[in-house]
Order: sequence, then structure tokens, then C-alpha cells
Amino acid sequence: MAYFLHDDFLLQSKHAVRLYHEYVKELPIIDYHSHLPPDGIASDGKFENLTRIWLAGDHYKWRALRVLGTEEQYITGTATDREKFRKWAEAVPYTLRNPLYHWTHMELKNPFGITELLGPGNADRIFDTASAQLQTSAFSPRGLLTHFGVEMVGTTDDPVDDLRHHQAIAGSGFGTKVLPTFRPDKVFQLSKGDDYRRYIDQLQASSGVAIVDLDTLLDALWNRLYYFHSHGCRIADHGLNSLPREVDTSLSLDEVFKLVLAGDDALAAEHEEAFTFLVLSELCKLYHDKGWVQQFHLGPLRNTNSRKLRELGADTGYDSIGDFQQAQSMQHFFNTLEEEGRLAKTVVYNLNPADNAVFAAMMGNFQAEGTKGKMQFGSGWWFLDQLDGMTQQLNTLSNIGLISCFVGMLTDSRSFLSYSRHEYFRRLLCNLFAEDMNKGLLPDDIDWTGKVIQDICYHNAKQYFNL
Amino acid sequence: MAYFLHDDFLLQSKHAVRLYHEYVKELPIIDYHSHLPPDGIASDGKFENLTRIWLAGDHYKWRALRVLGTEEQYITGTATDREKFRKWAEAVPYTLRNPLYHWTHMELKNPFGITELLGPGNADRIFDTASAQLQTSAFSPRGLLTHFGVEMVGTTDDPVDDLRHHQAIAGSGFGTKVLPTFRPDKVFQLSKGDDYRRYIDQLQASSGVAIVDLDTLLDALWNRLYYFHSHGCRIADHGLNSLPREVDTSLSLDEVFKLVLAGDDALAAEHEEAFTFLVLSELCKLYHDKGWVQQFHLGPLRNTNSRKLRELGADTGYDSIGDFQQAQSMQHFFNTLEEEGRLAKTVVYNLNPADNAVFAAMMGNFQAEGTKGKMQFGSGWWFLDQLDGMTQQLNTLSNIGLISCFVGMLTDSRSFLSYSRHEYFRRLLCNLFAEDMNKGLLPDDIDWTGKVIQDICYHNAKQYFNL
Amino acid sequence: MAYFLHDDFLLQSKHAVRLYHEYVKELPIIDYHSHLPPDGIASDGKFENLTRIWLAGDHYKWRALRVLGTEEQYITGTATDREKFRKWAEAVPYTLRNPLYHWTHMELKNPFGITELLGPGNADRIFDTASAQLQTSAFSPRGLLTHFGVEMVGTTDDPVDDLRHHQAIAGSGFGTKVLPTFRPDKVFQLSKGDDYRRYIDQLQASSGVAIVDLDTLLDALWNRLYYFHSHGCRIADHGLNSLPREVDTSLSLDEVFKLVLAGDDALAAEHEEAFTFLVLSELCKLYHDKGWVQQFHLGPLRNTNSRKLRELGADTGYDSIGDFQQAQSMQHFFNTLEEEGRLAKTVVYNLNPADNAVFAAMMGNFQAEGTKGKMQFGSGWWFLDQLDGMTQQLNTLSNIGLISCFVGMLTDSRSFLSYSRHEYFRRLLCNLFAEDMNKGLLPDDIDWTGKVIQDICYHNAKQYFNL
Repeated sequence: MAYFLHDDFLLQSKHAVRLYHEYVKELPIIDYHSHLPPDGIASDGKFENLTRIWLAGDHYKWRALRVLGTEEQYITGTATDREKFRKWAEAVPYTLRNPLYHWTHMELKNPFGITELLGPGNADRIFDTASAQLQTSAFSPRGLLTHFGVEMVGTTDDPVDDLRHHQAIAGSGFGTKVLPTFRPDKVFQLSKGDDYRRYIDQLQASSGVAIVDLDTLLDALWNRLYYFHSHGCRIADHGLNSLPREVDTSLSLDEVFKLVLAGDDALAAEHEEAFTFLVLSELCKLYHDKGWVQQFHLGPLRNTNSRKLRELGADTGYDSIGDFQQAQSMQHFFNTLEEEGRLAKTVVYNLNPADNAVFAAMMGNFQAEGTKGKMQFGSGWWFLDQLDGMTQQLNTLSNIGLISCFVGMLTDSRSFLSYSRHEYFRRLLCNLFAEDMNKGLLPDDIDWTGKVIQDICYHNAKQYFNL
Repeated sequence: MAYFLHDDFLLQSKHAVRLYHEYVKELPIIDYHSHLPPDGIASDGKFENLTRIWLAGDHYKWRALRVLGTEEQYITGTATDREKFRKWAEAVPYTLRNPLYHWTHMELKNPFGITELLGPGNADRIFDTASAQLQTSAFSPRGLLTHFGVEMVGTTDDPVDDLRHHQAIAGSGFGTKVLPTFRPDKVFQLSKGDDYRRYIDQLQASSGVAIVDLDTLLDALWNRLYYFHSHGCRIADHGLNSLPREVDTSLSLDEVFKLVLAGDDALAAEHEEAFTFLVLSELCKLYHDKGWVQQFHLGPLRNTNSRKLRELGADTGYDSIGDFQQAQSMQHFFNTLEEEGRLAKTVVYNLNPADNAVFAAMMGNFQAEGTKGKMQFGSGWWFLDQLDGMTQQLNTLSNIGLISCFVGMLTDSRSFLSYSRHEYFRRLLCNLFAEDMNKGLLPDDIDWTGKVIQDICYHNAKQYFNL
Repeated sequence: MAYFLHDDFLLQSKHAVRLYHEYVKELPIIDYHSHLPPDGIASDGKFENLTRIWLAGDHYKWRALRVLGTEEQYITGTATDREKFRKWAEAVPYTLRNPLYHWTHMELKNPFGITELLGPGNADRIFDTASAQLQTSAFSPRGLLTHFGVEMVGTTDDPVDDLRHHQAIAGSGFGTKVLPTFRPDKVFQLSKGDDYRRYIDQLQASSGVAIVDLDTLLDALWNRLYYFHSHGCRIADHGLNSLPREVDTSLSLDEVFKLVLAGDDALAAEHEEAFTFLVLSELCKLYHDKGWVQQFHLGPLRNTNSRKLRELGADTGYDSIGDFQQAQSMQHFFNTLEEEGRLAKTVVYNLNPADNAVFAAMMGNFQAEGTKGKMQFGSGWWFLDQLDGMTQQLNTLSNIGLISCFVGMLTDSRSFLSYSRHEYFRRLLCNLFAEDMNKGLLPDDIDWTGKVIQDICYHNAKQYFNL
């Protein structure tokens, strides 16, 4: 079977080859949003084998295995790591045309140097080879981040987190900046009953603020936000179906919140959106005041399969793409903050590709003097983090906004092996611009094009996130 | 005027040519969903002329003629068959870039062997030539199904149908399996007043069950489903705007249904969605229990033109594409069945291309152990049954699911000449994979790619539908 | 820096080159919808400098400057025209891949003959050169319309307009027909309070009809419509989020309207959609009776940034793309008119590309005998007026309707320099058809293809608008 990941993978023309190899290949990586585990980076412990670093936690692979009818035992269950790897190796040839097919072979090639197609025939050998490599220091979390030239990683952290791993990393002299991101999603889940109250307890404990009403809730969040700020955090993140609408409520939200705290959930679900609007707005104003960047990941429909949610928990591959109406609530939310002059720098990520144009156009309404690309339509995300999805995001952004101001790629990943996604992005970006040059849609000026692409791959993010 | 339908039509590269001609061209056809008339296959009567087999009932052509301002007399009216054909021949050159332009010339080429472009100049000659051919046994319904290598046809049948034509065909030793599909759309049209009551009467008569309330309605349907099952039916189909939401109703649906049976329609429209949810869910559970495949055709906005509906009836070319919200009701519907462990194998077809990603992602949430591709995002349908629409469906499915598990093409057609659509699908599919190989996005391994394409064109459907 | 706008810009093949240069390049332009100022054409006054004709009023350029963080002073503020031009020249290299990059250089090339890339280095020289040319009669409004071969311009006019500029132009013997378009958007803004009442006063004054209730409002509009008709107007236009739904209202709309006239706005917002449905329907029936064409521009979300609306007013670059549901209200609106046999020729423009298929399919439901392409899915509009957006519109129209019946391009612009958009459209259209010929998707018959493209670029519009 012919191998396909040659040096010029995705680069379909001489211009593309030159742009990639001469202009962007060697640039460092700013991975401003990821889900990498801070404790893993702090402890820098090695991975036992290839399954542990590569299959554990990767719901993309799990979904592919499930399409093939693979027994759950070999996916998240009790099978051995080798057995699980064999099942994955059997599946790989059937993932052709799915992004997994490219990610898989790119990740085997770099960092493992394995340049053959994974399949049942070489599963054991590849498992053993890579697992052995994982026992060397070059393949520890820090070894890998260094190998991939990662200048900064933004992790994703709950406000109740004590950030001790970030402190440890910062104190260790490790070359990659590992910065926390403030992600208070659980604060908005008013209707989760006891789980919610337990979370409020944690928030109380971590902040030292007794939470008895809305004001004290905001005090507690403010306290944590300061704490995060003092530990280098400059980015917030929110995962929502859509930005919340401002709903008129006859009852005061303070009253509703106090009822929930007291164990009465009768009004919680009905007022959750209004509550989210209020608390989120207040947080966003603080982000602005502290000079942070706020991120919004919009569009998913989560936990679609109740049975699997019970059996396997959240984030196990049963989330999906929603078709929520986005434009008016987003407009109203940003406009409300803009009216107060407290709209922070913002990156919005869209999960339903049908809404790309809406997102790209909306960003153009709230740009600001003195900041290049204050409002960013973020890179193709999750299900859209593939050749077509990323290309569509880049084209829509180009057509409706200015791609020259784009802050570029991020992994949004839980895996230390996902840095090939930056390579993938850079390759397809170079190919896209090169195609325009080849078609005469852009001047045949490789230096200017190269400079713009360098900005997108590195300099824009460095400036935008003040790194 | 140059002819264009050469042997390598749609095949833009050597790989594409090889994939099509060496791997899939000769595979039999499994046409698991069509609207072919069982009586026509049973009687195997010849078509009087080319208009009868080709223009009568083809609302695609009718819509094209109407855009051109053609008088209805020549479309569905009283003009002679030859006059109608001349109008169509005049129109054809103006359909360029519409799928009709390709279908038309592919269908003239195969089976008629006519390799020239249809236009006013050769209309009479082509009408006469093809009409003469239609008088030979090779061009009867069975002759054509045999000619096109059709291994199985799924027809579309109302639960009240007695299936005698299917019995006759089965008893005749005809080489193509002609199997009924259970399509109970009329059961859900609670608000149709006397039409609805007449239908319930038919259902009573066919089932022998006196329908006096919801329970007996379900009994009657259950009875018919058994009857269909005993006549080889293993597939159900439903045409809906979207899957119904589960609506809270203060009144019991049994009460509402009994009022409607008694001639009181006041509450019917308001409760139709809740009623549909309930009855459809019950049917779906039975599909699961019997090991059937259930199909859902979602997205159309039907009967948009009231005047034409009165004048010409339904299905005459006045249906359209809706923009319904699909994700949450679909998730809830499938989740409800999954919760009971009674979700059957499912194919969902989407009519609004903006929703492709939502559909493709949703299917991934309900796959099952031991079944390859249990949940299928169906092929581009109706308005999307063309080069761009089918390509988009294939690409979205590839990016978000596994195309290797896809059950492939179906005609969904009323015409015995539509089998060129399978050829069209196979050609564009081969071209798509070949393009990936040419670009280095897939390994240059034609045997593996060819095997996957063979699965998509034939073997997956054969296995999925237990044929 | 290499220049890129050679003669065969956008024309990627020999067929494309031939189609453009031999078939459509020299055809006159019918610009059936624009926002050109009638007073400017009447007075034919010269532009002071390049900023005045090119940057003033161009919210596309303003949005690009704002993404780059440019101070508003240099966009709409008090900076000198030369300073503003310099800022734009600095921005241009950063607009690559945005349509502005192409428009900018096409407009410098034609009419100014400037064939270099605009940037900071040549800003002053280009400003001076072009500004000097603008002082010659070839560059006055009429000079430019003549230069670009514009046969007809449809302006956009409020019903209260006295059309004296149109009269003056008509009486002046100017070769380009400049015809008014009836655009009564303000009539529907029932909830605008005193602004609304002031507008009703103007409508009273211009019509001579005392407006005291709905009937007299319709009388006044009828009067203005006759007035416009007698001044050559044959086209109406409406800008709406979506076509209005017919909402049941307990109160009579006559009552609501009288309350608003009396200064009581309490019920206005709530009834605005029902009021719009009623008044718009009545107008549309009159359009039909007078043989007009009606246009609907659907999909924008306007005035998204309240602060900027207060500071800079409307139409300053803070409008966006909405995600409204379109299908059912559009179907109902057209069906209501069709039921009365009073549906005029109609062009519908769509701003959210996700809805293209919905729009294209809907048009097919209301075509009419004896009129070629009565219902038109209009060209890519505003944010979609670019290579990808226009291509998508053309492809969707081709796949779902008949592109051979399309009335083609319009500028929808406020600038006398925007006629390069017709050139852009013609080039990309030729390239699209040529690509199909090259791929064997169309016969290699350049005369037929060329004829169809000529129809799309000129003859269809000429016939459709009775010019």
C-alpha cells in the first residue's frame, strides 16, 4: 500500500510548497486554546503506551469505532490497551476521507517517525515501537511540547481550580508558557439541582465568599477571576448552544437564585437563560476591564444520548451539531456590552457550518479603533476541524472579513499529539493562498503573501494575546 | 452540436476511469427506495410512447417547463403526447447546468442507445425511435429492470395496500426482488377531516380491526405491519417536515383522536404533532422489534401553491425546500427510542443542504455495537439529487462520519428510466475518491479505494438490508 | 509587486476567454437595481477628488478599515480627503482575498487606467492622478455611465420623492435611461413613533390625501404609485428581514394604525408584522395590476451596533447577516397573492447563503405560463456579492432552477465606479460555464453556451423589464 504523507502533503503547487517550507514551517506554535491537562504537564509523567496517549479520551476515534459497530468494551471498556489499539488499527483503513485518517498518519509520522499506514497487519509492531519511544524523555508531555515548538499553551480551567499545577510549571523553568483559561460553564447550569449546589459550595470554598445571593455569587466569581489573573490568566472561555437572550422575567433573578440555593429548583430551568445572560454579562464586563480575551464556543447540542450519558458520562462522543438561531442573541449580547463600552476582545467559534456567514458578518459590527481584529471569527472547530471545514471558515472569513487579521489555529485538544493540527492548518492555508496566486486572483508576490500567512500562523496571535 | 456523454463522463482522471470501469460499473443495483408502481411491474405492460414513460409523472421536468413559461396544457394538460414531447425537446437545451440536462441525455443513451442531444430539430425522430423500442419486450418494466441489473427494488406502499401486485411478482419468478415498503404517512394527518376519516375507514377494512380509539388504531397498524412483514417487507418510510416534537398536551390524545373519529376536528390541528410523536414512536418500536430498517425523508415544504393543488393535485411540482429546525426534535426522537433499547436501523434523508452537517453529526450519536453503520445519513435527495448536492452529502458524510459504511444510492423515482442515477452516482463517487488520490489526500492504493467504493455501491446495502 | 489584473482575469481556460471576449464583453449593461443618486445624475456635477467618489458612502471599505483598527476620524470623520485616502491605501494590501481587493484594482484600472497595486507608496500619486481625471467630463456621473455602456439604471426612491431629478434627466436627452424604483420601506415602520408620524405627514403632503386610517393610507400609496408609474417606474423594491407572516390579531389593524396616528404607540411594535403583511400585500397586488416587477431583499440584520447608530446613523457599516426562517412566510405570502391571481413578476435576493436552496426552490413554485422566468432568485447580494457568493448563487440556481432564464447582475451600489461588478460577474459566469465544458459536463458547443450567457448578461433582463 502506497504511503502518502510526503513532504509536500496538501501543497498542490510550487507556490504552496514555497509558502509552507520557506515561510511558516519553522514558526513557533501559539496554542491559545486547548484542553491539555495541567497536572500532566506539571508532573511530566510518561505515557504507559500508545493507547494511553492516543486513544484514551479521544472521542473522535470513539465515534468512528462506533460507526463500524465495534463493541464498547474495546473503546472505553475493560479490554486491554493492546486490544484497544488493535481495534483502532483495524478501523483506520475504513476512516479514509475522514480527518482521522490524516490526523492518525500525521501523528504517527511526527513525533514517532512511523511512515507507514496503520492497519491490522502492523498494529502490534507499531504499538510496541511507539510505546517504547513513549518511555523516553523526548515523549513526555514537556518533551512533546518542546519538540513541536509550542511557545504557549492555554489550558481550560474551572474557576474553582487552585492552579497549583500552573504555578508548578511556571516555577519549573519550562520553556513553554502554560497559562490557565477561566471557563466558568458550571456557574450557569442553574437547573442542575444538587450538582449545581455542590458546585456553588466549591466556589464558596475556593473564593472564601459566602454565596447567599446573586451579589455574593458575582463577588465569588470576581474573586476567582482576580486569582486567575494573578496567575497569568488573560483568557476566558465559554461553551454555550448560543449566546443567551435577555429574557424578561417577572420574578427577580436574585429571588430565583436564592430559591435554588435553598434547594427549590421549581423555577430554575425556566429562568436559566435570563440568569445566564445576567451573570455572563457581568463576567464579560470584568474581562474587558482586565484586558482579557473572551472566547465563545457556540453551536453544539450536547449529551444527545441519555443512556450513554448515564453509562459513560459526558464528553464521550455523544455530542453533536445543533441548529440554533444565533444572529439576534449574539447581536444583542455584544451590543449590550458595547453600549457600556465594556466589550472585550472576542473570539467566537461556530460549530454549524451553515452559520459561518452569520458569524463572520457579526464580528465586523463590533471592531474597535486601535486594535487589529478585535472581534475574531475563530477557526473551524470540533466537527469542522478538517480540510473542508477549515477551508470554509477561511474562505468565509476572507470574503466577509479580513483574513490578514486572523489569529489562526488552535488545537482545542486533550492530546499532546494533536500538534500536527497546526501543521495541517499551515499546509492548507498555504495551499489556499497559493491557489489564488496560481489562478491570478492574487498578485504573484510571494513575499507579501508569505508575510500575511506568517501573521496568521504566528504574529497575529502573539500580538492579540499580548505574548 | 458536440455530444458529451462519452464513456468517461464525469471521470476526470485515470484513477477515476479505472475505479469506475474496473471496480463498480458491473455491480448489480440495489434500489432500496423507489416509487415504482408495483402494478406496472406485475402486469409488465408496455409503454405507449416516450412521453408516457418519461414525461408523465416527472415533476422535475414539469418545473423546468414552467420556468420557461410553457403552457400547462403541454405539461399536465390535454395536448397530445407528441406535442408534449416537442415542448420538452424545445426546453432541453435551456436546462443546461440543471441535473435534468444530464439525466435526459443519460436516459436517452441508456437504454435507448440515442447518442445525440435532444432538441426541437430531432424531437419527432427521437420520439418515434424510442416509442418503437418501447414496444419491444426489452423495454417493458421487467425488461428494463433486468437490463439495468436491478437486484432489488423497494417500492413505497400504504399500509392499506393489499400487496397483491407484490405477490404476483414474487410468484412469477421475476429475477428482480420487488419488496414493499411500509409508508403510513396518512395515519398522521389528523387534521384532514373527512379525508382522514375515510383513510381510517380503509385502514379498518384492510386490517379487520374496528378503530375506535388510539389503542385500536395501533392494533390496526400492527396488524398491517405483520401483513407487510409476511409479504417480505423489511423497510418503513416516513415523509415529514421534521421529526415530531413531544408536545405536552393537557388533553389526552386518545380523547382528541376519538373526537376526530366522531367528526369533531376542532382540536385536530393543534394536537397533530403530539399525535404524530406518539403513533410514530410506537411504530418505530415495532420496526425495531421486527428487525426492519426505518427511513425518514425530512425537510420538504409541500403543496406551496394552493391554486395548483386544487387544479392539479399533490405531487405535481409545487413542493419545495423548508428551513425547519431539525436537530433537537431529531435528537429527542431517537433518544426516546434508544432509551427503550428499541431504535431500529435508520436512514435519514435531508432536503435542505444547510442542514447536512447537523444530520451527519446526529447519526453518529446512535450507532450500535455489532452493526456497521446502523444510523445512516442518506444520499442527496430530490432537489439535492444532482452533482453538487450528492457531492456535498458525500463530503459531509466523509468528514463527520465514515463514508466507508455508507449504503449508497437509491433512485427515489417513479420512472423505470431513472436507473442512470445509479450510474451517475457511481461515476461521481469514483471521481471524488480519485481526486483525493490525485491530490495525495489518500494513498495511491486503487485496490483498497476500489473495495471501499464497491462496498458503497453494492455490498453495504446488501448487508444492511439483509438481501 | 506583480500586477494581476490582465485581460483574462478570472478566465481560467480558452473556453472562458472566448466566451467572455467574443460573446459578452461588449454587451450593454442593464443595471436594474442601484442606489445611485438621481440628483447627482441630473446635475452631473464633478467629484472633487477620488475620496469623494470612492470612499465616501462605501461601508464595505469602512468595515475593512475598522477591522484593521483604523481610527473613525479617518473613515467617516473630520480627517481631510487626502488623509482618508492614505489610510485606505495603507489598508488595501491587507484586504487580500476580500472582494474589496478585486473591486479596488478593477475600479482603478477602469475607468482610471491605473494598472498598479494601490498601497502606501503610491497613494498620493494615485490620489492626484485620479482626482485630476475626475475634473474632466468623461468622469462626471453621466460621463461614467456612458463610458460603462449603461443602457438603463434603476434608482431607489421613496414614495414621497417628487422625481424631479428623474424628470430632468429624462428631458435632457441623456442616453442612459434612469428610472425610479418605488421603495416604501418607511411605510411599514409602524413602531418608530414620531419618526413614523413625520413620514406619514410627508406621504400626506406628497399625495394630497389626508391619511386618517388604513384605507386612506392605501389611497395615498396608490396615488404615489400612479405618480411613479407616470414617470416611468415599473419596479418596486422592499428591504425586509423576511417576508411578513400573516398574524392573527384580536384588534383591527385599522384601530391600531389610528392609535399610532394619534400618538399612541403602545400597540405598534406588537402589530407591526401584521400591519406589514396587510399593507405590503395590497401594494403587491397593485404592482401586479400595473405590470411591474417587485423585488424583495431579504435576510439582513440591521443596525446591530446602537452606539454607532447614534453616532454615525444608519447604513454606515453596522448591518449584518441574519438567520431568520424564510421558507414558510415566503410561501404563504406568495401563495396569498397567487390565490388572487395577482402575483407580479418577482425577484427575491437572499443575504444568508445557507438559505440559497430554500430561495431557489421556492421560486419554482410560482412560475407562470407565458413568462420566461417570472419568479427570479436574484444575484448574490451585499456580503455575498463576491466570487464565492455569486458562484454559489449561480450554482444553486442552476441545480434547482434554470440558469438560462436568469436576469443576471445588478450593482445595488451607491457608487458610479461600481460598474466593474458587471464585468466581474460576466467573467466569473463565463469561467463557470467554460469549466463545465472543459470537464465534459456540457457539450463543447460554444455558440449555444455563448448565447445562453448573452441572455443572462443582457437579453433576459431587457425582456423581463420590458426595456
